[in-house]
Amino acid sequence: MATNKKLHLPKRKKKKSRQQNKLGKAPGTISYMGDKERGDSVIYSTSYNVNGFETNEYENLDQFLKEDSSDKITWVNVVGITDEPFIEKLGKHYNLNPLVLEDIVNTEQRPKIDEYEDYIFGIFRMLYISEEDEIIGEHIAIILHENTVLVFQEVKADVFNGLRERITGKLGRIRTRGADYLFFALLDAIVDNYFLAIENLNNRIENLEEEVYQNPEPIVAQNIQQLKKEILKIRRWIYPVKELISRLIDSENPKITKDTKLFLRDVLDHAIEINESLQIYREMSMSLMEMYMSNMSNKMNEVMKVLTIMASIFIPLTFIAGIYGMNFEHMPELHYKYGYYVVWAVMILLFVGMMIYFKRKKWL
Amino acid sequence: MATNKKLHLPKRKKKKSRQQNKLGKAPGTISYMGDKERGDSVIYSTSYNVNGFETNEYENLDQFLKEDSSDKITWVNVVGITDEPFIEKLGKHYNLNPLVLEDIVNTEQRPKIDEYEDYIFGIFRMLYISEEDEIIGEHIAIILHENTVLVFQEVKADVFNGLRERITGKLGRIRTRGADYLFFALLDAIVDNYFLAIENLNNRIENLEEEVYQNPEPIVAQNIQQLKKEILKIRRWIYPVKELISRLIDSENPKITKDTKLFLRDVLDHAIEINESLQIYREMSMSLMEMYMSNMSNKMNEVMKVLTIMASIFIPLTFIAGIYGMNFEHMPELHYKYGYYVVWAVMILLFVGMMIYFKRKKWL
Amino acid sequence: MATNKKLHLPKRKKKKSRQQNKLGKAPGTISYMGDKERGDSVIYSTSYNVNGFETNEYENLDQFLKEDSSDKITWVNVVGITDEPFIEKLGKHYNLNPLVLEDIVNTEQRPKIDEYEDYIFGIFRMLYISEEDEIIGEHIAIILHENTVLVFQEVKADVFNGLRERITGKLGRIRTRGADYLFFALLDAIVDNYFLAIENLNNRIENLEEEVYQNPEPIVAQNIQQLKKEILKIRRWIYPVKELISRLIDSENPKITKDTKLFLRDVLDHAIEINESLQIYREMSMSLMEMYMSNMSNKMNEVMKVLTIMASIFIPLTFIAGIYGMNFEHMPELHYKYGYYVVWAVMILLFVGMMIYFKRKKWL
Amino acid sequence: MATNKKLHLPKRKKKKSRQQNKLGKAPGTISYMGDKERGDSVIYSTSYNVNGFETNEYENLDQFLKEDSSDKITWVNVVGITDEPFIEKLGKHYNLNPLVLEDIVNTEQRPKIDEYEDYIFGIFRMLYISEEDEIIGEHIAIILHENTVLVFQEVKADVFNGLRERITGKLGRIRTRGADYLFFALLDAIVDNYFLAIENLNNRIENLEEEVYQNPEPIVAQNIQQLKKEILKIRRWIYPVKELISRLIDSENPKITKDTKLFLRDVLDHAIEINESLQIYREMSMSLMEMYMSNMSNKMNEVMKVLTIMASIFIPLTFIAGIYGMNFEHMPELHYKYGYYVVWAVMILLFVGMMIYFKRKKWL
Amino acid sequence: MATNKKLHLPKRKKKKSRQQNKLGKAPGTISYMGDKERGDSVIYSTSYNVNGFETNEYENLDQFLKEDSSDKITWVNVVGITDEPFIEKLGKHYNLNPLVLEDIVNTEQRPKIDEYEDYIFGIFRMLYISEEDEIIGEHIAIILHENTVLVFQEVKADVFNGLRERITGKLGRIRTRGADYLFFALLDAIVDNYFLAIENLNNRIENLEEEVYQNPEPIVAQNIQQLKKEILKIRRWIYPVKELISRLIDSENPKITKDTKLFLRDVLDHAIEINESLQIYREMSMSLMEMYMSNMSNKMNEVMKVLTIMASIFIPLTFIAGIYGMNFEHMPELHYKYGYYVVWAVMILLFVGMMIYFKRKKWL
Repeated sequence: MATNKKLHLPKRKKKKSRQQNKLGKAPGTISYMGDKERGDSVIYSTSYNVNGFETNEYENLDQFLKEDSSDKITWVNVVGITDEPFIEKLGKHYNLNPLVLEDIVNTEQRPKIDEYEDYIFGIFRMLYISEEDEIIGEHIAIILHENTVLVFQEVKADVFNGLRERITGKLGRIRTRGADYLFFALLDAIVDNYFLAIENLNNRIENLEEEVYQNPEPIVAQNIQQLKKEILKIRRWIYPVKELISRLIDSENPKITKDTKLFLRDVLDHAIEINESLQIYREMSMSLMEMYMSNMSNKMNEVMKVLTIMASIFIPLTFIAGIYGMNFEHMPELHYKYGYYVVWAVMILLFVGMMIYFKRKKWL
Repeated sequence: MATNKKLHLPKRKKKKSRQQNKLGKAPGTISYMGDKERGDSVIYSTSYNVNGFETNEYENLDQFLKEDSSDKITWVNVVGITDEPFIEKLGKHYNLNPLVLEDIVNTEQRPKIDEYEDYIFGIFRMLYISEEDEIIGEHIAIILHENTVLVFQEVKADVFNGLRERITGKLGRIRTRGADYLFFALLDAIVDNYFLAIENLNNRIENLEEEVYQNPEPIVAQNIQQLKKEILKIRRWIYPVKELISRLIDSENPKITKDTKLFLRDVLDHAIEINESLQIYREMSMSLMEMYMSNMSNKMNEVMKVLTIMASIFIPLTFIAGIYGMNFEHMPELHYKYGYYVVWAVMILLFVGMMIYFKRKKWL
Repeated sequence: MATNKKLHLPKRKKKKSRQQNKLGKAPGTISYMGDKERGDSVIYSTSYNVNGFETNEYENLDQFLKEDSSDKITWVNVVGITDEPFIEKLGKHYNLNPLVLEDIVNTEQRPKIDEYEDYIFGIFRMLYISEEDEIIGEHIAIILHENTVLVFQEVKADVFNGLRERITGKLGRIRTRGADYLFFALLDAIVDNYFLAIENLNNRIENLEEEVYQNPEPIVAQNIQQLKKEILKIRRWIYPVKELISRLIDSENPKITKDTKLFLRDVLDHAIEINESLQIYREMSMSLMEMYMSNMSNKMNEVMKVLTIMASIFIPLTFIAGIYGMNFEHMPELHYKYGYYVVWAVMILLFVGMMIYFKRKKWL
Repeated sequence: MATNKKLHLPKRKKKKSRQQNKLGKAPGTISYMGDKERGDSVIYSTSYNVNGFETNEYENLDQFLKEDSSDKITWVNVVGITDEPFIEKLGKHYNLNPLVLEDIVNTEQRPKIDEYEDYIFGIFRMLYISEEDEIIGEHIAIILHENTVLVFQEVKADVFNGLRERITGKLGRIRTRGADYLFFALLDAIVDNYFLAIENLNNRIENLEEEVYQNPEPIVAQNIQQLKKEILKIRRWIYPVKELISRLIDSENPKITKDTKLFLRDVLDHAIEINESLQIYREMSMSLMEMYMSNMSNKMNEVMKVLTIMASIFIPLTFIAGIYGMNFEHMPELHYKYGYYVVWAVMILLFVGMMIYFKRKKWL
Repeated sequence: MATNKKLHLPKRKKKKSRQQNKLGKAPGTISYMGDKERGDSVIYSTSYNVNGFETNEYENLDQFLKEDSSDKITWVNVVGITDEPFIEKLGKHYNLNPLVLEDIVNTEQRPKIDEYEDYIFGIFRMLYISEEDEIIGEHIAIILHENTVLVFQEVKADVFNGLRERITGKLGRIRTRGADYLFFALLDAIVDNYFLAIENLNNRIENLEEEVYQNPEPIVAQNIQQLKKEILKIRRWIYPVKELISRLIDSENPKITKDTKLFLRDVLDHAIEINESLQIYREMSMSLMEMYMSNMSNKMNEVMKVLTIMASIFIPLTFIAGIYGMNFEHMPELHYKYGYYVVWAVMILLFVGMMIYFKRKKWL
């Protein structure tokens, strides 16, 4: 719940210069759009078939390109996409379209699956929960190319550890299947992790709900708005996936076997479910704001009641005291023996009467 | 109406660990996702044809698998789905796809109907009203497989008692029809029970409406929000059913006879009607919140009026008393014989004038 | 306008028992779902052709079934649908599907048109305005069956008087046409009466609008909400009709002649227009609520202004009086000859200054 | 801006009797539905071809029917549609369907284009701005019938003056084209005038916007609501036109030449643009209301601040004065030589402190 | 942030006269609709092929028309479209339809792509950021006509500088491709600049967000509304582009090569992304307004609390002081030696009690 107490406005990215830099350049120009510091790319390659597997790490591109593992399924994991010449050279090796290379390094690219003659190319957002319990969305590009699946990611952290274990530990059927199954398995891992983001949102909604009911401070409203924005952002990453997978299933691409399509339908199911959840969370966050406003009104009502009760009781009493504070020469009551006590009695009666009145109005 | 007085926030399920456990596992891994305690599964089997029927209860899977009732329609009711090896073995016997088995034990799975070569597989939510007048949604899987209909449910309670009576009591046409009619009858029973949930929501809306008009306390707003959330939840369970049945009717699956399709159209009608009701309830719950806010404003207005009337009447009077409470040496009024009475007269006149003013403004 | 003053919450129907009674019964079970008291059904039959017409009233079903009027168009009007065996027997005579009979007595059934091999079956809501100026919606079932049109209604009141006059008075072309034209004419009469409901809603909106502007009491808000609910209810009855008629026109059913389709298109036009009106009324009722809220705020503002003006003027004046009500020994002003008058002058100046200030702020 | 100051609620049309009169009548009954006084119809006919043109005015129908101008394009303009026998006779001459005649005199008919075998029949709303700067919507019927275009309108005022000038002045290509081009030109004139209505709405929105910002009185809210209603009304007239023209273009009706379709596409473009504008104005009118509410809140805030500042400053000061107005025998301060001055000093300090506090809170 | 401080209501264009001028004119009449001052048009022509390029500037139309560059790709840039005869003459040279010419000079024309037999004609809005950081939308018309691409723009400023450099500097592949690639490249440049507008909106939303949180003055609400209106305006310009490009890709127009379609798909991707962003900004601007209202309520609450606390504390204390300011003869307390001190003590106790009460209520 503590996470709701502080408000972290998103850091402003200095996107402007980047967007402007790209203006006027020819399409197909490979130009890194993200905000990571420039560094070298590293290739982690995993080759496997039913008989065994092999993992390698290459910091030198040429060395990697020399290797040949055509009899195996190869998962080529490129970490770091800031080095444009590196990407270009690798792209040439696999004969990739310049537009594909442009998208690989365009970290703002929305999810898409494009089918080319020799390969299927997909861009996704890989979501995971950071240690600060925030949802991180990393740009990821996946290319299914004959026996090879190329994966491009910005940082080493990813959501594929379970998949790696299944390959190395020979769990499940992955080692017995083709590259299209690996492609599916990567997609499956990405979509499965969306559930964690969904869960994270759910927890935050529940925390905010509790706070709205118990302690509706202005910071809560800000956090609700922040949540809304984050749901919008995540929806943008997740929403297209449903449509993309559905189209891939319907396409008659021979690179995807009928068997793998059955599995893709499972991923599609998950994608639909996640979209539904997001939709519900969106409506719930709107309800939360409504609830917050209603609680604010409640509090205002309460404040007004206290003021009204105090003023309504004591203003008339003060008036009575004021009367007998006047200095007229001829005020008979002032000289009555019990005048003072009678006034007290009247005041107490008034007070009690008021109290009963407010009780009846249920203001007390 | 009492049910609206207390607010029960939904118990937080500890989903996280479960979701995370599943991450990285191969698709088709059978892993129970619900929150019931693990226990043994029990099989209740009902075989029937026009001539008669037979019911059996098996706690031992192997014993069940030995039975043969190929000349009858068999309804196999599996209660308890926490025992994954049990499910797997049963699945192998009927040659079910691992993805199907995964969905059977995934209690979070959204409703779906998948048509496989040998069988039709459906996941639904069975809704019934608990004794505490709450809507319970239980995960249920139904498989139409030649002469057999397999039903998987988490707990023994279900909505099929009427159906059982019709089989055992030879009521209606069920005993004379095939397994597809049983499949339909199960679906029909599930959808018919949605009407009870709809009715429950309707009653709650009517109760809340009455309370909003008569006694708009903050708890009412919370209950309205709670209702909204529940409508969202139930809609998610019910909404896909319409589409699923419609697709089943349109599909040319030979397992569903033309006659049964006529009955399925009736179920479709009901599903559409239920969706319309849910939609209307959603709009009504929004109206309720609006009404609540308007009543809050009304109350605030009333409080403000009391304050304004009290202050507007007595502050000027107190001012007059204050005047003649001043201690100036030269204040001729103080020495007038009837000064005191004149002041009283002025005050009473002012009071009456104010009252008339407020009466005219309809504040009194 | 008086109708807006009182709030009539809808009477709660005891639906529950009925819904529950139906649970578990086989589909096709004929079970009256309405809230009318059980009674006998009466058959009013009108047979006509170009040459003449004949009207009969049968309280005995068997007697009716003996009659033969195959050379004429027969309009069979069944009033009262609570007698299930009666309905069943009649249904058997005309060879109607049990699902049709079930729908005839299910007064909650949403509008539908189903085409069977031998007949076309439609369920509609017949709307008319009661003497208390309320919109009444009666369940009605119409079956076009060769030369016969069967109409089932709960009560005798209906919207077909004009149609009867056209048959008996030989007005228009109805006597020269087939049963499909009668079917159309019934539909046309039902849809034409929707305009009266629309008009009724329109009048209520205009009355409420006037009240919102002139006298925005809480009861007005409740009446707006009541109106919204009624619009939702009526939309549910009217909305599907558009789609149903459109489908009937597009279907290639030989029972509907091309000529009649032209007339049906006219009905479709009306149905579309009515739906548009309902949509507009819905938006207008939302605007009304908004307007009500804005008027509430206005009133609050006015109350606050009165309070603020009174308090802002007299509190400082009272303070000044308080100053010279202090009992210090050494207060030189008290001994000035014109001190009292100077204080009065200061007070009057302050008062005038305040008045000017508030005038400028347009609070007065 | 003055137009926003007064509120003119729409005059209530006495529709009821008319609607009810129509109930029960046979379809195709020609019955005027508008609110104009009954009067004679006048025919203005314009015949033209490349060589010349001729205009005639007939108050007598028979005389008109005798004329023959089969070698020319004839534009028959019927002004006044209250005379049903006149319409019927004319309709018979051109062999029009009774349903068409019914629609011609039904001034409530929504826009439509129906294609009959011999003619194309369209109903539209002709919008123009009255001298009081209000948007007037007149019912108009257009029939394209071989070489003749029939136009039916309620009053003489119309939007076709430019078109007339083009025919008589031989401007543009109209004299060289067929009747379908005339049909298009009429439609074009109608749709072009929608832009004036759009402009009128735009001006009113801008005026209201200014007033909302500068002088948010309750009358402004009412005018915003009035605007919203008018937008709804106009949208209902304009919205279907887009769809109708689009369908006419797609239809393979030989009466419309390919060349004219190119021009119709231009009209379609305009219709789409007008619909977009209406949509935007609708959203803007909602924003206006929101803005009005926000300004109301602002004003309330300001009122509250004045009250709070006055009360917070003077209530404590009055309290201090009250203290030293007490009549205790033993109050040492009263006898201090500078007691009075010290109290003044304390009060001034308090006053200054308060002022600083409110300044810091930015309430001053 | 300073840009949010001042409110610039949009200048009212005097559209009326222009719209009215156009009324009644024949379609295809070339009539400039913009608000620029009339002036001469200038033609900037750039011819290129793989071997070289040539740029020319013509102020005289005839001189330009004499030139022949049929062996090259020619980009004809017409700056200034107020000179209707100029446009007409140019149009005749290229055999353009009058409707096309009408659209070229109609600066209010919404985006469209029309395919004619000999050419493809497109209207777009070119967006760029002015020096005052405002989004400027300029009308632009592009025609792909064999080897020539005609571009019509109102002012010289445009978004094609990068493109010009690529042609003159022989960067990228543009010099090696056909006119359709140039057409694409112009479109690409226009759509790429939409990102700058999107960015500008994003910055403004972020600034407004900060201000709403920190300093919610009325001007902020006005700026939010202003932003909303601008988003609506820009959406109208950008929204159709997506659909237009998509249709162009799907059309089988031989003028667009398959290769160029691949690039167009990239533009389509961008257009979709931009639309998504606009949609999100729209929702965010609504959230902003909501947040503003919630902050207003907060502030009101705070004001009310200060008032309530001050009044609740000092009104009772003043009452006590009033009591002992009464002038009754018989008031024993007045004569007590420590009466005065006891009253002080009571007052201080009351004060402390109140403070604790408000602390507990969290109002302090």
